[in-house]
Amino acid sequence: MAVSNIRYGAGVTKEVGMDLQNMGAKNVCLMTDKNLSQLPPVKTVMDSLVKNGINFKLYDSVRVEPTDRSFMEAVEFAKKGAFDAYVAVGGGSTMDTCKAANLYASSPHSDFLDYVNAPIGKGKPVTVPLRPLIAVPTTSGTGSETTGVAIFDYEHLKVKTGIASRAIKPTLGLIDPLHTLHMPERVVANSGFDVLCHALESYTALPYHMRSPCPSNPITRPAYQGSNPISDIWAVHALQIVAKYLKRAVRNPDDLEARSNMHLASAFAGIGFGNAGVHLCHGMSYPISGLVKKYKAKDYKVDHPLVPHGLSVVLTSPAVFTFTAQMSPERHLEMAEILGADTRTARIPDAGPILADTLRKFLFDLDVDDGLAAIGYSKADIPALVKGTLPQERVTKLAPRPQSEEDLSVLFEASMKLY
Amino acid sequence: MAVSNIRYGAGVTKEVGMDLQNMGAKNVCLMTDKNLSQLPPVKTVMDSLVKNGINFKLYDSVRVEPTDRSFMEAVEFAKKGAFDAYVAVGGGSTMDTCKAANLYASSPHSDFLDYVNAPIGKGKPVTVPLRPLIAVPTTSGTGSETTGVAIFDYEHLKVKTGIASRAIKPTLGLIDPLHTLHMPERVVANSGFDVLCHALESYTALPYHMRSPCPSNPITRPAYQGSNPISDIWAVHALQIVAKYLKRAVRNPDDLEARSNMHLASAFAGIGFGNAGVHLCHGMSYPISGLVKKYKAKDYKVDHPLVPHGLSVVLTSPAVFTFTAQMSPERHLEMAEILGADTRTARIPDAGPILADTLRKFLFDLDVDDGLAAIGYSKADIPALVKGTLPQERVTKLAPRPQSEEDLSVLFEASMKLY
Ligand SMILES: NC(=O)c1ccc[n+]([C@@H]2O[C@H](COP(=O)([O-])OP(=O)(O)OC[C@H]3O[C@@H](n4cnc5c(N)ncnc54)[C@H](O)[C@@H]3O)[C@@H](O)[C@H]2O)c1
Ligand SMILES: NC(=O)c1ccc[n+]([C@@H]2O[C@H](COP(=O)([O-])OP(=O)(O)OC[C@H]3O[C@@H](n4cnc5c(N)ncnc54)[C@H](O)[C@@H]3O)[C@@H](O)[C@H]2O)c1
Ligand SMILES: [Fe+2]
Ligand SMILES: [Fe+2]
Repeated sequence: MAVSNIRYGAGVTKEVGMDLQNMGAKNVCLMTDKNLSQLPPVKTVMDSLVKNGINFKLYDSVRVEPTDRSFMEAVEFAKKGAFDAYVAVGGGSTMDTCKAANLYASSPHSDFLDYVNAPIGKGKPVTVPLRPLIAVPTTSGTGSETTGVAIFDYEHLKVKTGIASRAIKPTLGLIDPLHTLHMPERVVANSGFDVLCHALESYTALPYHMRSPCPSNPITRPAYQGSNPISDIWAVHALQIVAKYLKRAVRNPDDLEARSNMHLASAFAGIGFGNAGVHLCHGMSYPISGLVKKYKAKDYKVDHPLVPHGLSVVLTSPAVFTFTAQMSPERHLEMAEILGADTRTARIPDAGPILADTLRKFLFDLDVDDGLAAIGYSKADIPALVKGTLPQERVTKLAPRPQSEEDLSVLFEASMKLY
Repeated sequence: MAVSNIRYGAGVTKEVGMDLQNMGAKNVCLMTDKNLSQLPPVKTVMDSLVKNGINFKLYDSVRVEPTDRSFMEAVEFAKKGAFDAYVAVGGGSTMDTCKAANLYASSPHSDFLDYVNAPIGKGKPVTVPLRPLIAVPTTSGTGSETTGVAIFDYEHLKVKTGIASRAIKPTLGLIDPLHTLHMPERVVANSGFDVLCHALESYTALPYHMRSPCPSNPITRPAYQGSNPISDIWAVHALQIVAKYLKRAVRNPDDLEARSNMHLASAFAGIGFGNAGVHLCHGMSYPISGLVKKYKAKDYKVDHPLVPHGLSVVLTSPAVFTFTAQMSPERHLEMAEILGADTRTARIPDAGPILADTLRKFLFDLDVDDGLAAIGYSKADIPALVKGTLPQERVTKLAPRPQSEEDLSVLFEASMKLY
């Protein structure tokens, strides 16, 4: 597995100016979104840059849940600036936008679709050298500071897809729990659900030795390799933290212990899924957020309809794990147990329903909308949702159990209502 | 934390020729020791090199428990060969020798002591670029495939020391459990004790936020940063594997499950201690092996007296953890529990003796020599052993509890006899 350079600790962000100096950076691009640009995390970074005499330009037009268009605007900014390093301060939206900006500014003659995952894009391997990128996460969810993935909404097809290459993995992640204190309640909850699903999906992904075709040359191995003994450790550990701390982190903005732990869990789960992959909750989430109609997410300071990523993945989780449980019932029971279920008398064939019930209770306790219906979808949307899932085979083929279109329909339908 | 690129699986070694091809290597140095050069792991690597048309030269004069002299011989070979990549196939002795060869061949005008840890050497930071190095461990112990450390015996002072820099961390570790099937019983046991101590020491090392002085610039942070939430995961997980599999791996050469798990545990513990550090068992082990008199280690096919590294670290472990327990009694109890102790009614002040007793029983069950006396030391040697420990402050200062010379004397004395 390939791993990530991260530094953890309250206040580590103050060192970012020195890190850039150590890298020899003289002209830095600082990326964030409009909301965060007014908040302490960005201020801390700017102060450190100024203190260390680092020239920088601020780009604060990152779109929350970015699109191909918003990526390209950031790329334009990056190309013009001819930067020698990047700092992304924000959630997955900011970190992913910054990865794309760095990539395309370093490869100025590439077409946007060149590096986008096949079959939507061409999925070309990245061979150009990129500039250093320091990622400073401010949500506790995506783990994007540890992954070589950048996700965007391809507006033309109304579906999310992404760029996946080890080359765009941040040079360094600065995981500073102090930033988590500013997150509003729903951002904590939704980004926490992202961690939950990264852990659940990577732990149940197709085992690495069962993935086919087996690449004949190691260089052609995808970043997502299937579950393996190393990603398992990260997944289980992240899940234990979610079980212990997510509710506390959501409910109490001052619970630094809980929020710090979730901040680390996000990186842990990121390292896990960044090597193992995710599968159906993520594959099905991309049309769920891509086809959004009018849903306005509480606590997200944006002027467009939006299904936050973490919400879009977690809503299908009870259905998905009911479907996959037969492939590794012990793992499914183990996860239910970590999440608080009493599995002492559980029977193997009940593993799926037990985990699903545990998840439903967890979501109910955290005031999650009651299924896809509650965020604006109805039965009539299912064909479009299925159609939007089909091109996500980079992840869906990592599901432990193969799915027909019919299976996907059933999964969406079962996710319309949760409680 | 900085992490390591590793690939795990039965047979992954067969891909090494392709990996080198992907790196563009045309003239490779293959290092191993005389004993291993006759065994299947080296043959597998050679076959893969030949099959992929990679030119290579074999260096099989690695010394088991290397010295400054044996390092320098390997460096000479490397300088003459003008290699563009390295493959190390063997235990810590081979991997460490290869790291040194790569380093000094890439920095031909450096003095040997330039990069050796202070205060014995000058501890200069490595700024030259090194060649790619692929490490293929054949013991399950050092985790050297994941660390930026190379240890040798400095003959002139009769003490072990080393080189520590992220720059010498292998480019890739190929962790192939098939190689473990050839290890003789005592090599399995002793290298397993190395894993045990890496886990125990890194888990009890001074917490990262209590280390001082706190470096003002992140670039001057040492590789060994004190225990932290990430290294803790590796340490606990490695310890669980040791508890479950080490005895089986020692006793049954055909127990592929046990030996595979220990092979992974070695890398896990390596990632843990490579970031957190080790402390007293390792600090005190360096004079224990450096001052060896006549002890001949069973199953080690060498013609010089030798206290294998794993044995030299584990013999002081009961005394060391009795000494350190007061600083983090819960962690000491947790480790005792993982190793099989019933701690339900344990009292906090007894944490040290409980862990020590658990370790003594574990060592007794695995036929370990009865303390330093059994490997040739007596009370009269204690001043020299203490003197040899003092320059090891790179590790000893990571002990959770500071030690006087008097304390060290007492620890050596308490380790003379175990049972
Ligand atoms: N690259 C990956 O590996 C990966 C993995 C999962 C998800 N994603 C992608 O990441 C995006 C979601 O990212 P996210 O969930 O981290 O949220 P986000 O970046 O979309 O931010 C959500 C909202 O929270 C606000 N916010 C962020 N941090 C804050 C703080 N500390 N205080 C106050 N407000 C704060 C933002 O301004 C924004 O309004 C999606 O596009 C998703 O597809 C990427
Ligand atoms: N770099 C690090 O991070 C680090 C950490 C701990 C220890 N070390 C160092 O590593 C050295 C010890 O290494 P080690 O314990 O791995 O053993 P080793 O390399 O010294 O080998 C021990 C013996 O086992 C034999 N052997 C190895 N693999 C075999 C196999 N598969 N089948 C049959 N025989 C095999 C060798 O030929 C040798 O005779 C010491 O010098 C120690 O100080 C380094
Ligand atoms: Fe996600
Ligand atoms: Fe060791």
